[in-house]
Amino acid sequence: MSEFYRKPKLPDLDMPIGKRARLHRLLYEKGIGGGKMLVLPIDQGIEHGPINFFVNPDGKHPRFELELARRGGYSAISFHYGLAAKYRREYPDIPVILKINGKTNIPSDDQAFSALTATVEDAVRIGCDAIGYTLFVGSPMQAEDMAQLMEVRSECDRYGMPLVVWSYPRGAAIDKKGGKDHFYAVDYAARLAHECGADVVKVNFPKVTFDMDKFGKPPAPYDNLDIDEFEAFRQVVESAGDSMVLVSGGSKMGDEDLLNKVELSMKAGATGLIFGRNMWQRKMDDALALTARIREIMLKY
Amino acid sequence: MSEFYRKPKLPDLDMPIGKRARLHRLLYEKGIGGGKMLVLPIDQGIEHGPINFFVNPDGKHPRFELELARRGGYSAISFHYGLAAKYRREYPDIPVILKINGKTNIPSDDQAFSALTATVEDAVRIGCDAIGYTLFVGSPMQAEDMAQLMEVRSECDRYGMPLVVWSYPRGAAIDKKGGKDHFYAVDYAARLAHECGADVVKVNFPKVTFDMDKFGKPPAPYDNLDIDEFEAFRQVVESAGDSMVLVSGGSKMGDEDLLNKVELSMKAGATGLIFGRNMWQRKMDDALALTARIREIMLKY
Amino acid sequence: MSEFYRKPKLPDLDMPIGKRARLHRLLYEKGIGGGKMLVLPIDQGIEHGPINFFVNPDGKHPRFELELARRGGYSAISFHYGLAAKYRREYPDIPVILKINGKTNIPSDDQAFSALTATVEDAVRIGCDAIGYTLFVGSPMQAEDMAQLMEVRSECDRYGMPLVVWSYPRGAAIDKKGGKDHFYAVDYAARLAHECGADVVKVNFPKVTFDMDKFGKPPAPYDNLDIDEFEAFRQVVESAGDSMVLVSGGSKMGDEDLLNKVELSMKAGATGLIFGRNMWQRKMDDALALTARIREIMLKY
Amino acid sequence: MSEFYRKPKLPDLDMPIGKRARLHRLLYEKGIGGGKMLVLPIDQGIEHGPINFFVNPDGKHPRFELELARRGGYSAISFHYGLAAKYRREYPDIPVILKINGKTNIPSDDQAFSALTATVEDAVRIGCDAIGYTLFVGSPMQAEDMAQLMEVRSECDRYGMPLVVWSYPRGAAIDKKGGKDHFYAVDYAARLAHECGADVVKVNFPKVTFDMDKFGKPPAPYDNLDIDEFEAFRQVVESAGDSMVLVSGGSKMGDEDLLNKVELSMKAGATGLIFGRNMWQRKMDDALALTARIREIMLKY
Amino acid sequence: MSEFYRKPKLPDLDMPIGKRARLHRLLYEKGIGGGKMLVLPIDQGIEHGPINFFVNPDGKHPRFELELARRGGYSAISFHYGLAAKYRREYPDIPVILKINGKTNIPSDDQAFSALTATVEDAVRIGCDAIGYTLFVGSPMQAEDMAQLMEVRSECDRYGMPLVVWSYPRGAAIDKKGGKDHFYAVDYAARLAHECGADVVKVNFPKVTFDMDKFGKPPAPYDNLDIDEFEAFRQVVESAGDSMVLVSGGSKMGDEDLLNKVELSMKAGATGLIFGRNMWQRKMDDALALTARIREIMLKY
Repeated sequence: MSEFYRKPKLPDLDMPIGKRARLHRLLYEKGIGGGKMLVLPIDQGIEHGPINFFVNPDGKHPRFELELARRGGYSAISFHYGLAAKYRREYPDIPVILKINGKTNIPSDDQAFSALTATVEDAVRIGCDAIGYTLFVGSPMQAEDMAQLMEVRSECDRYGMPLVVWSYPRGAAIDKKGGKDHFYAVDYAARLAHECGADVVKVNFPKVTFDMDKFGKPPAPYDNLDIDEFEAFRQVVESAGDSMVLVSGGSKMGDEDLLNKVELSMKAGATGLIFGRNMWQRKMDDALALTARIREIMLKY
Repeated sequence: MSEFYRKPKLPDLDMPIGKRARLHRLLYEKGIGGGKMLVLPIDQGIEHGPINFFVNPDGKHPRFELELARRGGYSAISFHYGLAAKYRREYPDIPVILKINGKTNIPSDDQAFSALTATVEDAVRIGCDAIGYTLFVGSPMQAEDMAQLMEVRSECDRYGMPLVVWSYPRGAAIDKKGGKDHFYAVDYAARLAHECGADVVKVNFPKVTFDMDKFGKPPAPYDNLDIDEFEAFRQVVESAGDSMVLVSGGSKMGDEDLLNKVELSMKAGATGLIFGRNMWQRKMDDALALTARIREIMLKY
Repeated sequence: MSEFYRKPKLPDLDMPIGKRARLHRLLYEKGIGGGKMLVLPIDQGIEHGPINFFVNPDGKHPRFELELARRGGYSAISFHYGLAAKYRREYPDIPVILKINGKTNIPSDDQAFSALTATVEDAVRIGCDAIGYTLFVGSPMQAEDMAQLMEVRSECDRYGMPLVVWSYPRGAAIDKKGGKDHFYAVDYAARLAHECGADVVKVNFPKVTFDMDKFGKPPAPYDNLDIDEFEAFRQVVESAGDSMVLVSGGSKMGDEDLLNKVELSMKAGATGLIFGRNMWQRKMDDALALTARIREIMLKY
Repeated sequence: MSEFYRKPKLPDLDMPIGKRARLHRLLYEKGIGGGKMLVLPIDQGIEHGPINFFVNPDGKHPRFELELARRGGYSAISFHYGLAAKYRREYPDIPVILKINGKTNIPSDDQAFSALTATVEDAVRIGCDAIGYTLFVGSPMQAEDMAQLMEVRSECDRYGMPLVVWSYPRGAAIDKKGGKDHFYAVDYAARLAHECGADVVKVNFPKVTFDMDKFGKPPAPYDNLDIDEFEAFRQVVESAGDSMVLVSGGSKMGDEDLLNKVELSMKAGATGLIFGRNMWQRKMDDALALTARIREIMLKY
Repeated sequence: MSEFYRKPKLPDLDMPIGKRARLHRLLYEKGIGGGKMLVLPIDQGIEHGPINFFVNPDGKHPRFELELARRGGYSAISFHYGLAAKYRREYPDIPVILKINGKTNIPSDDQAFSALTATVEDAVRIGCDAIGYTLFVGSPMQAEDMAQLMEVRSECDRYGMPLVVWSYPRGAAIDKKGGKDHFYAVDYAARLAHECGADVVKVNFPKVTFDMDKFGKPPAPYDNLDIDEFEAFRQVVESAGDSMVLVSGGSKMGDEDLLNKVELSMKAGATGLIFGRNMWQRKMDDALALTARIREIMLKY
């Protein structure tokens, strides 16, 4: 590892004081502790619709996720203004990362862009601890997205709110360069969010193979690297520099696959995980049991 | 006690969500817990000057108070922007009630008025949990003071910040109506802060006697009530209605007197205490030992 | 009565639509009905302090007044922001005239001026139906007061909020011209409020005699009119023109005196009464019984 | 050379005082000195992605570039807000040209436009010394770009910040008129930036030949000038008038080619160079050795 | 010395990045270096009028002070907007602390208050490095002064500008409590500036004796401390906590007295000196010779 790299860790960061106090709560005072972050997102009602709730109908109701976050000892829950404003009151002890932009998946992702559903000031007023923003890297709407992110980042600076960027490659261009899940795409996304001022970057775990027929190939040398997914992700973490990295869960996996993902992520330098469907598509007891195992792994690092 | 009175308690309050989340932290997640509040103020450097630090020179350094707040398990520390901005970073786990107005005691109190040293937005930016404001009740500058409080209260509403009002009778008029410490004055001060929108009211423990020669007498029936200080304070708590009440410590007392004050305050319905000089004018060990005894008493109620 | 005078009555008024809809609620849908208004004010905690609550300790608690307003069928309750924000939620059915300025009576009334405790926008946000504003007519601070009233009136126009002006003569100048309760003073106060844009003017019932030694005499011809109080008040009502007139109760009276005041007021053209201490300094049952008799009288007119 | 041309040199300029003080620092107090400027840009993480860091993995970490800038004696570093805000604190002595707009190269350059990632006020707040802005000359988005540049230029005037314009021909239209690197395109770009208010213009070293099949030909007389690249660049420098000119390094070259470029640039009147990949794609020692040779050449002019 | 005290030193400070970069320039890159600050103020033309220039007529002309600052190697010059805007252009290498408020000494100091002559934004625009503000502690205008300081401090935060507070006791009240130069007054002034958010506090060297007849006595224990001026100043430095302390020169002294003051100040923990009349009331050669001796002493600490 380069002598010029230093893994971001809150006590080492010269972070603005308000961001520092709020992140300290998520990383040390709540949830996993020890500088680790485990987040429970429930914004899929916007992103995918109620379709995701059929597997476990309880999951449709935010009180289920809030209860899971409380009992499971999550660092924070993440949802949109409508849910925060209506359900947060009953769970004032659960930190909230207010997700402030989103979109449905009804239109195609060709022009992917997530509109704001709330402002940073809204998040302050209802007592949230951080802001979540989705940036679609490489989309034809990228310029609008970056401009919107700049405004959000600026408000985060104004109010001392930590900024968590869901940094997702999207659109026709990336689909021709190895696809949105390839190391090239994820690496670029992590870097863009970092350079745009994210305090925390949320990425998908990268793939090192690509389907030439479907997605073409990524630019050299990404098309011909002899590394595994773990090493690829380790490099993604480095590309994010002083921004902390969270790994997305994505769609539901088996227990062992999920735990393996946790292990690899933490080992490679991630600050934590953000698992939604993988948790609330399980019954409460299963979800809690799995959470306990995740926590155990996280605390090893 | 009137059937129309209900002691304010956070779980019962239909408080705006941001205020609720922030107060929950002070009342349940930090410090004493159980809905009690013990605050360590260190704004005397402005109010009285460094004169207060001679007794215990360590007390001059905010790191002493922050350390005391952490080790003693206080619900919050309260100080001005200059101290918060410079020392808070090292103690991100200690909740802060940002004191946003103050004055020196060099000029007389005839025209007592505390100028703003920070804004509610400042408090948000540096990650504070509540606002502290001094209102001088009955001062010739009362109209300016109430107008300034209104602006502050309005910003607190905008940002979901709890408002703690240091409600202090002051000025020539109250000095002729029994003095600033008499039940009449304290009772009025508690009520004014309550009606002006305070979430928490800080008052001095009232006296039921008065020095006729020095201060004249309070208006009837306050000049002729057959009640003791405990009952007087109990009525003050009721006058503050749904606003929680904190009792000031004032200048340094002996241990037993102080503990007795705690006992009486809690028994009469106070939500907690705010003790500055009584704590940081003691050595660290003494202060911690005394804090432990205070906590014990508070948890009985 | 002049052919040019027309008693203000809501269905006849070409009032801005928002003000009309809100006043309609108070005058026809709630309370007395039939275009009459009976208001229960509880702002004395600021104006006089808790001193007013000793007679009937239940009265200290706003839930008592809200309960009385509900059971007694009042047109509205009137209190300050702190009480409205904290207790209104439990009584969403009671219309609220938000009293938005006030002062304590600790300093003398020489420089009487009531500072704002809330804005018209606050009143909109918490769902109030009208604004109450105290104007001190003739005070040395009169210019500041009128300027502040102008701002409030302008915000009322902007938001369609009815404006009720507590129009009270005050200060050294009026004390030398027959005193603040004389027909001269009250008549002038009613007119000033009317000309400044009040939708409703609250006045004290005028006196036609004066204490020459104490207060000097009012300017001619007020010093030598051969009319009784009823006729004086009738002329005050006419001075208020198209602004509706409410009569204050003032300090507590005997039942028959109070009912007589109601009778005279309504007969002389008042739109209603605003009785505070006269109601909540009585026990609930007494207050309700007296309210029933007041209602009976009001409905005759 | 025309008698009407005067090479821009800071002591001669009647520049607004803030711009002058800040540019003085870069040109005389830091770096090369003597009115020369050597800038180290590290915005390729946005423009090209982490792909540029594979050659020298240390280069991925901004501390490497900051260290190189310090040890090599650069006039300034140039990067985006995310890097400036996170790493600048450790190197307060290195002047910063905050790059405030950018884009990824994932989508094609057909609609090239760089969105803002920061404001001029951000640059002031974090203590930067100049603003860097990319203008895509000839792009279909040119109007939006010029409008955005106008806003930025206006803010630079407001805050006394020097404005450095990365003036790059781009888009389908220029691709049909000799291509983006031809003298015609570069000359036009230099002039546009100059006329839009740039204090410093960054251009690529122009070519005087063109690939007729691929890019068509530039308009006369650019298609038929009997001059070499040196003379072309000299004319570009004159087209930029009183705006200083910096030459881009572009992708990595051999040492001698690079030094030759420096020599030609300085000889032709450039104020300096801005070399990124050519420096940080080398190991620290190589980069420092090369920097020393560049400095030597620059100081000759 | 208390274990809770830590002498402020720039590399140790968790200061906002812009303030840090600008202070770094004054403390390490310019002037004395090594974290020391020597400032040359020339605002006496406002504070005292041209009367101060008779001793050395050259001193009337800001180019004299700028030349002295350059040749003498001062950390910064400090003057008002009019001088900065007119003369700064010729000396862009000299850092400027823009003095943004002031007053003449034509009226008495009874109601001492310094009006703004420039804004923080002005200072940014003309490229200054810090803000100088005079606060009159204990003046009857103290509330207005603190409110104005709050606005200035807030703008300094917005723009990352270091704030240097000239903290001066003034007014009738302090004249009755030992006078403006006594340890009590200076100690209070240092603390107030610190708590109000000063990054650097400028104070006068305190006296430990007082003229009972003229100034009354300071409050206990200040009236009866058995310490010398050095120890008093050491305690003042501690009262200023994490704010750096500069010592004023005041009116002209003999060389040895001045050098002794430098020695005592640095030994007691000051960050530096701010000497105006003591320098520019000397001829250039004398001033330079004396500056060289001051620098020598400063570098010992």
